[in-house]
Amino acid sequence: MSEPILDITQSPHKKAKPDPEHLSFGKVFTDHMLTMEFSRDKGWHSPQIVPYEPVSLDPAAMILHYGQTVFEGLKAYRGADNQILLFRPKKNFERLNRSSDRMSIPPVNEELMLEYLKQLISLEKDWVPAAEGTSLYIRPFIIATEPNLAVAPSYSYTLMIILSPVGSYYPEGIHPVSINVESEYTRAVRGGTGTAKTAGNYSAAYKAQERATEKGHAQVLWLDGVEKKYIEEVGSMNVFFKIKGEVITPELSGSILEGITRTSIIEMLKDWKIPVSERKITMEEIHQAYEEGTLEEAFGTGTAAVISPIGELHWEDKAMVINHRQTGELSRSLYDTLTSIQTGKLEDPYGWTIKID
Amino acid sequence: MSEPILDITQSPHKKAKPDPEHLSFGKVFTDHMLTMEFSRDKGWHSPQIVPYEPVSLDPAAMILHYGQTVFEGLKAYRGADNQILLFRPKKNFERLNRSSDRMSIPPVNEELMLEYLKQLISLEKDWVPAAEGTSLYIRPFIIATEPNLAVAPSYSYTLMIILSPVGSYYPEGIHPVSINVESEYTRAVRGGTGTAKTAGNYSAAYKAQERATEKGHAQVLWLDGVEKKYIEEVGSMNVFFKIKGEVITPELSGSILEGITRTSIIEMLKDWKIPVSERKITMEEIHQAYEEGTLEEAFGTGTAAVISPIGELHWEDKAMVINHRQTGELSRSLYDTLTSIQTGKLEDPYGWTIKID
Repeated sequence: MSEPILDITQSPHKKAKPDPEHLSFGKVFTDHMLTMEFSRDKGWHSPQIVPYEPVSLDPAAMILHYGQTVFEGLKAYRGADNQILLFRPKKNFERLNRSSDRMSIPPVNEELMLEYLKQLISLEKDWVPAAEGTSLYIRPFIIATEPNLAVAPSYSYTLMIILSPVGSYYPEGIHPVSINVESEYTRAVRGGTGTAKTAGNYSAAYKAQERATEKGHAQVLWLDGVEKKYIEEVGSMNVFFKIKGEVITPELSGSILEGITRTSIIEMLKDWKIPVSERKITMEEIHQAYEEGTLEEAFGTGTAAVISPIGELHWEDKAMVINHRQTGELSRSLYDTLTSIQTGKLEDPYGWTIKID
Repeated sequence: MSEPILDITQSPHKKAKPDPEHLSFGKVFTDHMLTMEFSRDKGWHSPQIVPYEPVSLDPAAMILHYGQTVFEGLKAYRGADNQILLFRPKKNFERLNRSSDRMSIPPVNEELMLEYLKQLISLEKDWVPAAEGTSLYIRPFIIATEPNLAVAPSYSYTLMIILSPVGSYYPEGIHPVSINVESEYTRAVRGGTGTAKTAGNYSAAYKAQERATEKGHAQVLWLDGVEKKYIEEVGSMNVFFKIKGEVITPELSGSILEGITRTSIIEMLKDWKIPVSERKITMEEIHQAYEEGTLEEAFGTGTAAVISPIGELHWEDKAMVINHRQTGELSRSLYDTLTSIQTGKLEDPYGWTIKID
């Protein structure tokens, strides 16, 4: 069992903070980070906050060879009255443990991790930016550190949490993007690691993303690995379609990541009495709705962008323009409401936000 | 273009060499390693041999988050007259580049890499063990080093080659093992990364391996991710079956690694005038051959074990004992001949081995 007390080593130097008007994503990091070690005999131990600094790994460390690793992504927001808010952080540590289970990594104590995270954010509170659309991105991750080329789970792990002030995903406001439906490359398949937030799923997607970019599209829409027919995700986001007033998102089939924004959107739609269903949906069905003029809106959901409207969908030789390439009414409402809850501008009716003292 | 000259920094301390009679796999490393850097402006540059030491990575280095990495595995053998031999090393660098292409990593100069490797082995020649079945395992790998949480190919990479003296895979000689046919978890699927030697494929297999171990089996036999019907690999090896005098191995379907031992075995069988075919093969066909008494031998092939005979195959509720759990005549001949070529005990009729001066 991990000890509840966190050792803190203050960084002797404080970095200059980046211009809040020109923040990018994930390139600048704060002064401190959290680390914790796992060994077979001690379990998870030695949680501490230390200056942000390079990690030293044996060249044979298993993370560098066999990819045994999991990660999470969430954000801290600065509210109007200067309070700092986290959005459903417990869900991230729960998912971290589900990912770890798939990758044979030992679980962490979720409650304790949340307490540690609060202490880290509290220490770095000046790094949480205030400008519209900005936030402090939080990246917890676990890496296998045992120096051993045997193909087997590691005996030792390091957990780290690093923090990066990030800009608005849409500097000029949210705008619909063009999407390429990928019919050759596969992101994940049932029985694989698609439900886990693990490194290999992400670099596996680069080749298809390159192809989409070459064709002038912003992202890839992924189909299932078995029949290449059912819709799974868009880029590294979950995806939603509004057809004839009903909102549809692919059901968690065993190869789709269970997004926390996805879950929140579903809960909001139910609260708003808008019909929403999680079920299998094919590209054929989307195309038919498009032909019939009933494909009203489409959008991706994720921590980084919150809502990313889809303006065009390119599938084989078919091009579908959705809602005249404009952000739909529902997409806009969901984005405005969810970001307002996240930043405390709107009262949180769901108990999703957690204040940091 | 990389420079042809290799900087060498000698290690001030020489480690004690492990007992050649008690070598394990991949836990002990030699005094030096090779490193080379890639940047967008310089390409691959600064190849050097340095003391074996920890690698320092920014906590945001892309390898730790999105798994953009490839690796290789090959061996150097000490021959009877003390000469050091490499087995088809060019094939490894060719495959490294194919893996890199799939993972959006820039290619290396294969000829130059081989020259660098020869220099490294030459410097570390005293680390190549001489005892029967031992060798120096060579692990080249490339990792994405850019500190950036954006989900995209890295701007910078480090290539490393580390060396580990390894024992015989079979301290008591080769012996057939029991295999569990996995019907839930998937190693790879067409359109995925199964043909690339990349980290994520390996840790993705741990869960199924744990299940096999719990049931008392040594390894997992993987079926295709689409129909869960066609045989793909066994553990992290290619797989061969001998049925009624014919040797069959799954064809390279787009989710199977193109093993260099696999290629060599196929070439040897053709040379020996033994019928060999690369084609789709189902578990149903294997089971039928077993029922008819025509399933004569089965074995895995890979760099680590060379040949790993399969003594038992467990598929759903069916248990198949192959060749009375004994190493088959063909498996034995292939193992003896190939290892004798690799170590220079037998003249190499194929031009596969390369001597290091």
